[in-house]
Order: sequence, then C-alpha cells, then structure tokens
Amino acid sequence: MTGRLTVVGLGPGTADLTTPAVIKALAEATDLIGYITYLDRAPAGPPGQRRHASDNRVELDRARHALALAAEGHNVVVVSGGDPGVFAMAAAVFEAVESGDAAWRALDIRIEPGVTAMLAAAAEVGAPLGGDFCAISLSDNLKSWTTIERRLKAAAEGDFVIALYNPASRARPDQLGKALEYVRAFKAPDTPVVFVRAAGTPDAKVRIQELGSADAAGVDMRTLVLIGSSLTRKIERPDALPWIYTLRSEREPS
Amino acid sequence: MTGRLTVVGLGPGTADLTTPAVIKALAEATDLIGYITYLDRAPAGPPGQRRHASDNRVELDRARHALALAAEGHNVVVVSGGDPGVFAMAAAVFEAVESGDAAWRALDIRIEPGVTAMLAAAAEVGAPLGGDFCAISLSDNLKSWTTIERRLKAAAEGDFVIALYNPASRARPDQLGKALEYVRAFKAPDTPVVFVRAAGTPDAKVRIQELGSADAAGVDMRTLVLIGSSLTRKIERPDALPWIYTLRSEREPS
Repeated sequence: MTGRLTVVGLGPGTADLTTPAVIKALAEATDLIGYITYLDRAPAGPPGQRRHASDNRVELDRARHALALAAEGHNVVVVSGGDPGVFAMAAAVFEAVESGDAAWRALDIRIEPGVTAMLAAAAEVGAPLGGDFCAISLSDNLKSWTTIERRLKAAAEGDFVIALYNPASRARPDQLGKALEYVRAFKAPDTPVVFVRAAGTPDAKVRIQELGSADAAGVDMRTLVLIGSSLTRKIERPDALPWIYTLRSEREPS
Repeated sequence: MTGRLTVVGLGPGTADLTTPAVIKALAEATDLIGYITYLDRAPAGPPGQRRHASDNRVELDRARHALALAAEGHNVVVVSGGDPGVFAMAAAVFEAVESGDAAWRALDIRIEPGVTAMLAAAAEVGAPLGGDFCAISLSDNLKSWTTIERRLKAAAEGDFVIALYNPASRARPDQLGKALEYVRAFKAPDTPVVFVRAAGTPDAKVRIQELGSADAAGVDMRTLVLIGSSLTRKIERPDALPWIYTLRSEREPS
C-alpha cells in the first residue's frame, strides 16, 4: 500500500506553537480529517486537498475513515490540538487499527508530536511542573468515576503535581468540583491550584487559588487545571499574579 | 527594568520539532545561556549575540547568571532541550528568583513551551500515553530514593502509564534496574516497557520488552522509558516493531 496516515498535534492554540514537522505534514496531505475547530486552524493546503470535518464525539469512526482513505492510497493527516498522543486522536487510530482490517497494520502510520496543553498552561504561570507530575483526564465518557478517584488518590499519595485535562463540559458541569473536593482529603489546604484557560494564546486567562477554597466556577473544556505538590511554591510579584513553581529538590532553595 | 529573560525548550532533537515562538525568542536575544549541547542546536543569532556555555551540573548558578544579565537590561534566553518546565531550567530560574535579589521579581520573565521527550518517545511507538500518565525523573541528585519509590508505587497503584526521565547516568548506572525491579511488584509481568533513545531524531532507537523480563542494559540519559498501564496494548505488524498504545477506555475496543 502506498497510502500514509499521519496524526498531528497543532499545539495549544496559536500557529507559533505548531512545529515545522506538523506544518510540513499538513502541506503534503491529500486529505485532512478532524474536528472542525482544528481543521480551521490548519493552513491552506495544496490545490485539491480535501477536508473532512467531523463532530468531536465520534473519534473511532473518524479514525476508521482516515485508515480507509489511507488504505486507498491517499496521504491522510488526522488533525488534533495539543499533542495527538495525549487525550487526543492517536490512541483512537490505533484502537481502530487493532480492531479493523488486517491490511491496516501494514500502513505507513506516523505520529507527529506537539506541545500539549499542560506545558503551555504551566508556562503561563511559571514552572509548576518542575517536579514529578501526573496527567489525568476528568472525562468520564470513557472511564468510571471510581477509576478517576483511584487515580486522584494515587497521585495525591505520591505527592505528584496533578494536571487535569477535560475538567468540565456542559454534560458534566460538576466533575471538577467533585475532583477538588476529593483531593482536599489528601493535600494541604494551601496547595496552589492554577486554572489556565486558552493557554498559549493571546486570550489566556489565569486564576490562582488555594486548594482549601478553590472553586470550579467558570471552568470549561478549554481550561487546564494544575494542582500543586507539597513542593509547589508561590512567588509574590509587584503588580502581577504570583509566579507558581515546583521545587526540583526536596531541600529548600539555597 | 527593561531586560527580559525567556526560558525556551528546543524540543527533543531536530529543528523540525522546535516551535516558531522559540526560534523568534532566540533570534531576538542578546545573550544565550545554556548547556553547550543545547546552545549548539540554536540557530545563528544576530551580530553581537553572546553565548554563555556552561556545564550541565550548575543549574542554579546558570539561572542566577541569566537573571543578573537580564537585570542589567539584556534580552536573555536560557536554552533547554525538550520543554523548559519539565525536568529542565524553568524551575531553577524561579528558585533563583525566590532566593535572590528582590528586584528580580519585577523582571519580564517568559517561558516558551516545547515538545517534551515523553511525547516524542510515545510518537515513535504509537500512542502509549493514550490514557492517564505520570512523569517521574529517576535522578536522585535532587530527591531521595525513598521518594522515587513512593512515586513509583503510587503510579502503579493508580494504574498510570509511567514515563521515566533521566533513567541512568554514569554516576547512577543501576537506577533504572532498581526501578524496574521495584515496579514488578505492582504491575503484571506482560506490561509493555518501551525504551526510546534519541526520540524525535533520525537516530531514534526503540526497544520493546515486557516488564517481567525488561532489562536496563544500554540505557543512558538520552533514553526515555515508558511503562504501560493495564490498558496498554501491543499490535503486531508485519516486518516492523509492534505498535504500542493505551486504550482510552476501560472497555475493549469495539
């Protein structure tokens, strides 16, 4: 088969965070497939490039469509935001490969990494991911709330910094509030909690609270939430939000 | 103060994974500071740009040097590989700010995110980070082995995929072997373990083993190690290494 399937991540928002490797893959593609919000961010392609926009909810169908087009010999790019391997399309593509036509296993499939949301969110406030950290999706479309609590508990017991993806949606407005309440049993009330909306864009909005009084109001799917570890610190600044960072060391800075 | 300090991440290896925002920051800098390996990867700057190469071991001194130059009015860029906020220079810069001259808190400090190693390593083999995951540095320069074991245990109990940074060095050749042995108590012996050296470069080398028999031989500081969760799967392919990916869902693919 001569077709190719590349799964790319555009990064967290603006074009200056999209890698040249992703731009090149988009420019060579005969077919782009993705959620319409992401397709709209892809630069104009060569004449004849086809764009297959789809609803965000049908990831596995979209993956199968992409694989079928590649198997026909097209050069297909599946477009994600952020990094395609982090709560995005790459895993759905491999699920579709595993359960699909055996011939799909011989396809030339490539993944082009990108800047995932937690990195851009961290960069907006300092270096909160400076120590060991976890990334957890709060979406319970694909896993149970029991599993989410198990992960939150383990992350707190390990004293990890926690990055929460997909913290809320119209269908699940209370998810983040429940998660914050659950984590309060395990972490100190003065643990910094950072909410970053639209990280990596000129519209980025940052809110910094302490875990004891952190509230989930105003949080949506474009928000990334970071909960500190015991080594996460706040540096007050004149006329600006404080810097938040996590000590690399268990010892105090010298 | 008119100086500026920007901490950038070049990404995992080749220029096609460096963001345009980072390239722009490098091009505007009067002074670059970093480990010589990273400075050598930065494109040639404007006439008069100064490059301050340093040994990799003195991160806090390097951070203070950068802050002092910025406080004098220079446009300083601190250069990291990968993402600057993940086991790299950004946290050291904020440590230096917190413990340093109060005037440094008024400096214009920016962090430019990058593609961190685990994303490029994951992309080499499929989508192993498709579920919730943790990142742990095995370097014990800055934390105790007790803390490392605490984190490994929590990550395993939470059934996270685990990304291990800094898995070994000449000073600590046995660290990864100890970590794998420790994790065996908590995860199934057939859990996929992926070793990716020089991820995101044409020299990338991948080794896939099972946890029960995984061995740390040949692993160095350029290697990223990924240990699967209970939902991490292997897709055999003709004439190629298998794909490794983690199910997004607790249910089997349909």
